Amino acid sequence: MANACLAGPVYFLLLVSCVLGPSPNLVAQEKGSVAIMPMPAHVVLGEGEFSINGNFGVELEGYQEPRLERARQRFLDTLSRETGIPLWREASLNPPQFIVRTGGPSAAVQQPGEDESYHLEISSTGVQLTAANPIGVLRGLQTFLQLVRITPISFSVPAVVIDDSPRFVWRGLLIDSGHRFIPISAIKRNLDGMEAVKLNVFHWRFADNQGFHIESRQFPLLQGKGSGKFYYSQDDVREVISYARDRAIRVVPEFDMPCHTTSWFMGYPELASGHDDPSHSSAMDPTRDETYSFLARFIKEMADLFPDSFFHTGGDECDFKEWETNPRIKEFMQAHGINDGAGLQLLFTTRIHDILASHNKIMEGWDEVLQPNTPKDVVIQSWRGLESLAEAVRTGHRSVLSSGYYIDLNQSAAEHYMVDPLGAATATLPPTEKARVFGGEATMWTDIVSDENMDNRIWPRTAAIAERLWSPQASQDIDSMYQRLAIVSQKLTYYGLRHRLITDEMLERMSGEPNPVPLKVLAAVVQPPRMYVRQELRSYTDFTPLNHLDDAVPPESDTAREFSAIAKRIVSGKASPQDWQQAQEWLSLWRDNDAKLQPLLARSYLTQELAPLSRNLSQVAEIGLQALNDLHENHLVSTDLRQRNIDFLKAAEKPQAVLLLMIAPSVELLVQANKTQ
Amino acid sequence: MANACLAGPVYFLLLVSCVLGPSPNLVAQEKGSVAIMPMPAHVVLGEGEFSINGNFGVELEGYQEPRLERARQRFLDTLSRETGIPLWREASLNPPQFIVRTGGPSAAVQQPGEDESYHLEISSTGVQLTAANPIGVLRGLQTFLQLVRITPISFSVPAVVIDDSPRFVWRGLLIDSGHRFIPISAIKRNLDGMEAVKLNVFHWRFADNQGFHIESRQFPLLQGKGSGKFYYSQDDVREVISYARDRAIRVVPEFDMPCHTTSWFMGYPELASGHDDPSHSSAMDPTRDETYSFLARFIKEMADLFPDSFFHTGGDECDFKEWETNPRIKEFMQAHGINDGAGLQLLFTTRIHDILASHNKIMEGWDEVLQPNTPKDVVIQSWRGLESLAEAVRTGHRSVLSSGYYIDLNQSAAEHYMVDPLGAATATLPPTEKARVFGGEATMWTDIVSDENMDNRIWPRTAAIAERLWSPQASQDIDSMYQRLAIVSQKLTYYGLRHRLITDEMLERMSGEPNPVPLKVLAAVVQPPRMYVRQELRSYTDFTPLNHLDDAVPPESDTAREFSAIAKRIVSGKASPQDWQQAQEWLSLWRDNDAKLQPLLARSYLTQELAPLSRNLSQVAEIGLQALNDLHENHLVSTDLRQRNIDFLKAAEKPQAVLLLMIAPSVELLVQANKTQ
Repeated sequence: MANACLAGPVYFLLLVSCVLGPSPNLVAQEKGSVAIMPMPAHVVLGEGEFSINGNFGVELEGYQEPRLERARQRFLDTLSRETGIPLWREASLNPPQFIVRTGGPSAAVQQPGEDESYHLEISSTGVQLTAANPIGVLRGLQTFLQLVRITPISFSVPAVVIDDSPRFVWRGLLIDSGHRFIPISAIKRNLDGMEAVKLNVFHWRFADNQGFHIESRQFPLLQGKGSGKFYYSQDDVREVISYARDRAIRVVPEFDMPCHTTSWFMGYPELASGHDDPSHSSAMDPTRDETYSFLARFIKEMADLFPDSFFHTGGDECDFKEWETNPRIKEFMQAHGINDGAGLQLLFTTRIHDILASHNKIMEGWDEVLQPNTPKDVVIQSWRGLESLAEAVRTGHRSVLSSGYYIDLNQSAAEHYMVDPLGAATATLPPTEKARVFGGEATMWTDIVSDENMDNRIWPRTAAIAERLWSPQASQDIDSMYQRLAIVSQKLTYYGLRHRLITDEMLERMSGEPNPVPLKVLAAVVQPPRMYVRQELRSYTDFTPLNHLDDAVPPESDTAREFSAIAKRIVSGKASPQDWQQAQEWLSLWRDNDAKLQPLLARSYLTQELAPLSRNLSQVAEIGLQALNDLHENHLVSTDLRQRNIDFLKAAEKPQAVLLLMIAPSVELLVQANKTQ
Repeated sequence: MANACLAGPVYFLLLVSCVLGPSPNLVAQEKGSVAIMPMPAHVVLGEGEFSINGNFGVELEGYQEPRLERARQRFLDTLSRETGIPLWREASLNPPQFIVRTGGPSAAVQQPGEDESYHLEISSTGVQLTAANPIGVLRGLQTFLQLVRITPISFSVPAVVIDDSPRFVWRGLLIDSGHRFIPISAIKRNLDGMEAVKLNVFHWRFADNQGFHIESRQFPLLQGKGSGKFYYSQDDVREVISYARDRAIRVVPEFDMPCHTTSWFMGYPELASGHDDPSHSSAMDPTRDETYSFLARFIKEMADLFPDSFFHTGGDECDFKEWETNPRIKEFMQAHGINDGAGLQLLFTTRIHDILASHNKIMEGWDEVLQPNTPKDVVIQSWRGLESLAEAVRTGHRSVLSSGYYIDLNQSAAEHYMVDPLGAATATLPPTEKARVFGGEATMWTDIVSDENMDNRIWPRTAAIAERLWSPQASQDIDSMYQRLAIVSQKLTYYGLRHRLITDEMLERMSGEPNPVPLKVLAAVVQPPRMYVRQELRSYTDFTPLNHLDDAVPPESDTAREFSAIAKRIVSGKASPQDWQQAQEWLSLWRDNDAKLQPLLARSYLTQELAPLSRNLSQVAEIGLQALNDLHENHLVSTDLRQRNIDFLKAAEKPQAVLLLMIAPSVELLVQANKTQ
């Protein structure tokens, strides 16, 4: 086989396709299906298309409210960015071709279960969007924006009739502003992204051991001593709530208690279980009345600030030893017939529940608040798994699934996509119990993610979770999901999201080069390890700069996934000549990359740690090229050599510099397929 | 010669370096000079470097004001983005290593000629920045940010002593919000860019025939009927003024009168010379007292809103026929002994001057307001050229040069860089007259530029103009300028400027492809024609979508400039083997691009017009490859063939689809160098 990919000795001789991976084509939208996400419940494609030009206008009919007018303007803004046609300026002057009919108002405070359905009808002459309330209108407008593509004639949308409504009523994204402060601008652009994929709950977590990042006027030392000077003012919060409501997104606040609360104790040490050294205490003292009078005042303040009917008080991961080893608390437990920490937490849960109920708030908490006597109206958010979710709904609780949707843990979109709130343990529940499964929430924890790289952890994978929560359960085609995910990822750029920009910007910075091509080649085939492995490999505090390659790359390597698919086709005898050639080109690129990359790595303290990883890439690719050639030529290889190669590959599959070389398993597949002498 | 660049038939086989052009190395900063822009007046490099880590802190000593504290915080924010180290959070807690000493306050309203000098001293153990006032401090902080680079040890700045002050007191950027409304967010990020390159005047033009884009409370129909609903509120304006003052940038408003004023007449037709049909009138009526009483009230309102001592009232490009063919106006002229339109404009200028003087404002106007009897304190902004500028200063006026700095006209950075306000006609003026040359202003007219692509017209070229206006006149090294321009261009990313993102985003949109590589190859070697040729080739209104390739590409092709340098070295016998190889690789890439690009072009109505241009690129490259080979092998070519090729290249140098193929002249150079039989 000729080395078609990398024939010359020139430093910059690199292939864009090799670097950047597959390139899906938006024209795919024309082939009998619509490339949108989440996929609508019912789609009937018609004939022809509706062209968008400078005369495009939108008219609102039926029920009117300012939010609808703002939605109209925002829709035109986004459509202008999508097309480059300045519709935002002139649309109001033109005869409307897009009629929006709204039946009536939605609830003053948005509720889970409100009607979000819409009917969208597009013909070559006009567009009609009908919905019972503004929420459905907002959903339908986003569907239209996703349908837009360019053709030889114009920007257009295909003729289509869509009837759509969500499968689950609670489709959320948690952003953790507790570990790290996330600026309002980052929150807002992610709300825009949520609207684009029809998510409807922004779960906003404000405090953790590391920081308390919201203004309390009742207890100003909370932010005064717990925030490191960075916190959301109440005006900021009101602005976000109003921004979210404009997008039909509820804002559910979380104040995690009684544990994960060290930052509270900076200003109010009397709340801590360990009074002597509150900075080493992470649990509130559930035995003192003063704790509850403090929390009653605090919760009232926050219940007034946040209009949503649900109020999340955390309750996860209490280390009961902190209570059980405290003589005073132990004495209280004995006096009140409480056996253990769990019993004490139930006491706390019940008292907080009652405070919330007095403000007409429904309590939400993590798995750990679920105990036999937990009040039945408490909503359980499950981070432990579907078993845990099943138990909650069996015992009468409404529940939200987050296990499987931890987008900070660097799992693939496919892994998240295949997690169904009504799959596995919940699949066999009776309908009345299934009905208690509210939906799910993706969780953007910020232990080791900052506002700089957050967008590339959230997007595009969260769109796959959004589809799971919105679209019919039968949507299970992973290839279709990935194809549409690439398209929606590009569209999300028009909403100001930065996920497609972050990697290159960070690579430039860490290398000091305006276009560090060999580093891009390496970056395209590595991933941070899944789950909690990163924390084992590097020590992180809140102040650790997140400016290494493992911070910069997306959680999922598209190139490695594509290479894996090719390798599988090759070993199963289903590969096309193009597959063989692509594999050969990529492997050649990777083999030759190390020589170009090493001098560049040596120039920067942030990239020096990548030297062994880069060498591994070259050596793995060398083995891969040999295996590919042996397969192609039907060579027999020695058992011994094959085993040595497999051993090397197994070693190369282990993390280096907190990164996994994602092509190594596919190369191993090729080697395993070689016939031995 | 082997075809080292493009050996394979695979669709995506493309070279990053070919696409993206040269890749300057930030390490250049270590080689005895500092890669910053504008180059400081005096730089003495020392030994060693100062490392930036999480313990970095800045302390303000001496004179204090809130603007300095905000500057400190903004400096830490930018430095955090530049390094990925979260300094913004912790710096205030650390022992300061960077001491800023401010002598005293600057003027309450910033004046041209205020002290902007600073002294910056960096050693391996600390940094000291000293300045007489906050303006100098702001300038010095930007110098520090540009010095930052990554090394094998850390992010650091080199040990250096810098004494710096500007050559000219007026270093401006005009943004034209008259032709098109430019959102506040775009204004702000460009103010950040201005601060980075030490510009100090934001000339903000609010109205033109096409639109009136600022709120008048005295005459609300100005924006009510003239803005198409998009205008700056007075609160917006105050916010921008305060944002600019934080960056030591003055805001000089321009209200162009008495011509370019059709938009005023939408709400107030009585102002127009042509009362019968004010929408076809572009000139105010300078004969009616009511015109002046209107303008007196309007100017008072705006003089109160804008604190700057200077107030620009335009005065350019009056079509005197509009007055001279109006019987009533003609009669007035005869009655007052006014011979012609120019005389009538002088009357207008004088009255406006007196209104402004009554509000203690100094009048500024374009070339046309200069007449023998124009009041001597009127500042002349010259758009006509250095002759015009020389005449203004000779006749006693202070002046600002904009001719040569029209960044909307797609000239090269080098062309702008070599225009000196004290060059050519002004070079031989006596010192007292030279002293009246205030400086210069880059002008971002928005006739055919929108807020979407504006950043890539302004940046990075405006940094070269900023250097001309700040640095010693002796700075004339174009190679050094381009090398540093590439580095500052990358740094400007940390200020939120979008110039490096726009092209790819627009190419994706026009092609409907997430990564349209062959279109990028074409885009990298074309430019919109210089000067006013675009308007001759395509008809534009304010509502014309600016979403074609000529809108998307930067005004200057870096790749074509680099190829031109190589071609020149080849024909002069100074080329290295790498030059020959690079030329061969690029030409091969371009030759083979058309086959890949044509199917893609056909799929989009926005790219179809590029088909002939793409074919030309391939054919020009084919000719170039042959010429290169003939040169390399010392082949003799037939006079006839050579002439045919030259004829073809001359034709290919003409605009196609409003774009120039920038490599054609260099290929012609190669062909011309071939020896004939």
